Amino acid sequence: MDRPGAVAQLRAALRRFAAEYGLDGPWCVALSGGPDSLAVTAVAAELRPTTALIVDHRLQPGSDAVAATARDQALALGCVDAHILSVDVGSGGGPEAAARTARYAALEQARDGSPVLLGHTLDDQAETVLLGLGRGSGARSLAGMRPYDPPWCRPLLGVRRSVTHAACAELALTPWRDPHNEDPRFTRVRLRAEVLPLLEDVLAGGVAEALARTAAALREDTDALDGIAAEIVITPELAVATLTALPAAVRRRVLRRWLLDGGAVGLTDAQIRSVDALVTAWRGQGAVAVPSAMARRRLFAGRRGAVLTLYREPVAD
Amino acid sequence: MDRPGAVAQLRAALRRFAAEYGLDGPWCVALSGGPDSLAVTAVAAELRPTTALIVDHRLQPGSDAVAATARDQALALGCVDAHILSVDVGSGGGPEAAARTARYAALEQARDGSPVLLGHTLDDQAETVLLGLGRGSGARSLAGMRPYDPPWCRPLLGVRRSVTHAACAELALTPWRDPHNEDPRFTRVRLRAEVLPLLEDVLAGGVAEALARTAAALREDTDALDGIAAEIVITPELAVATLTALPAAVRRRVLRRWLLDGGAVGLTDAQIRSVDALVTAWRGQGAVAVPSAMARRRLFAGRRGAVLTLYREPVAD
Repeated sequence: MDRPGAVAQLRAALRRFAAEYGLDGPWCVALSGGPDSLAVTAVAAELRPTTALIVDHRLQPGSDAVAATARDQALALGCVDAHILSVDVGSGGGPEAAARTARYAALEQARDGSPVLLGHTLDDQAETVLLGLGRGSGARSLAGMRPYDPPWCRPLLGVRRSVTHAACAELALTPWRDPHNEDPRFTRVRLRAEVLPLLEDVLAGGVAEALARTAAALREDTDALDGIAAEIVITPELAVATLTALPAAVRRRVLRRWLLDGGAVGLTDAQIRSVDALVTAWRGQGAVAVPSAMARRRLFAGRRGAVLTLYREPVAD
Repeated sequence: MDRPGAVAQLRAALRRFAAEYGLDGPWCVALSGGPDSLAVTAVAAELRPTTALIVDHRLQPGSDAVAATARDQALALGCVDAHILSVDVGSGGGPEAAARTARYAALEQARDGSPVLLGHTLDDQAETVLLGLGRGSGARSLAGMRPYDPPWCRPLLGVRRSVTHAACAELALTPWRDPHNEDPRFTRVRLRAEVLPLLEDVLAGGVAEALARTAAALREDTDALDGIAAEIVITPELAVATLTALPAAVRRRVLRRWLLDGGAVGLTDAQIRSVDALVTAWRGQGAVAVPSAMARRRLFAGRRGAVLTLYREPVAD
């Protein structure tokens, strides 16, 4: 039997995904005009009433023409509707993060209650895991993207990028080639163009798949440990005795939740470990400053006798 | 204040390690003659009665002279004893694995009840994590080496390789340079010489430390999940209802333990997932063949009604 064509593989992936997560109504697809999202759009529109959402980030000259072409392609592929969403990209957290924030906000607003299909492939997942390696914050940073994180749907996380490209060729579609995807100033581009090929060579192949499997396994581990930690009742004052009885991985998750509940934001692994040391390596050390959403009041986690407490102090002028 | 010298850093690491794991008697050190183990030997012999164990793998011409030099260095550094252990390296699992198996067996036999210090550094840990990435079996393959896995002690897992090299220079020691450490036929050598420097460049530094932190975090996660899975009582026939109530990450660990208890060996992630599908995606599929230590009888995990069962069948001639 011949290996099924690329379009057939994508169709099977979307059908499986829809069945697994019980998606049976109309859906949206986030379309950049690139090969991954164009291939998803083609297959999605075959299966369900599909609205294409095309974000124009307005970061490159001619982005309006790219968006217009994508809209025409979407309608030609049978989408019931296609909207261009023009956004203003801020600058918070670097250019890639700012574009992503603006994109997801626009999609969220435009989706009108429907789930949104995204074109992320197995290769994107592998790159995401490698990006997380550099952060070194354990499973949470290596767990990659979730296949289903409502309303976001990533039915192609198990499919290689080469398949979406081949599907576009099968369908005689000409996808847009984003010049950013070849710009080595972007970390992700260098991971794709330099690191992954070298790793594939050194580790004798299968690395992208192995990274994607790793992401899935670590996501399950994280979900299980988060679930177990969630069963521990958290109070504003946290008894040290409750914490010491827990395995380290669960204990730190409980501490993380306690800090977040108390108003902490953007916690690093190092900060959580400093708070953990109040439990496991107590020698009378001072309170640990943790980042807080309230700019004018600093947040501290300290130990008083047999309990951990959180308190705020005004920032000195 | 000046940054402490390299020898002082190693001394602090060994002292901290000994205190943390309650090591207070004499110890052995595995000495190859290379910079990492030579530096450990120098500092260990300062702190405790130290016996150097020098494995001669007899894989390279002149290995006996390398071993003899290492013995002389160990005694000059104040070791109370130094033994050369000549081994025969087999061929199982590739040259690196075979050498490791022979080395650990010889050390185990010669250590005479004492713990054995090993010279693995943070850089070795980072390489081990990258090696595990290629396997893609989740946290277990990324968790790296344990600092303390009795009788094996790795007090330098938090110390960069550059520090052991600097310590040898401070002590005017001339370490042996193993030509295997520069031979690109070894995967680990290419990870060290090509992949890690590229990743450091692309991810803007701190990668080795991030990989080591990742290993530590995943080891804790794995330990916690293994501990939780170990509390589930395992019986030869395993009730499906018991399993479905568990989070996926715990359920698969219970299945792994059940299969190992039943005589399975060398299980892959894919095999465990196939057995798991008997629980979570039951549609009457056949039993799953799993690798077994008994060559003449194949081992199968199957489902019968509401239970999983393990059974053996003679291999057909």
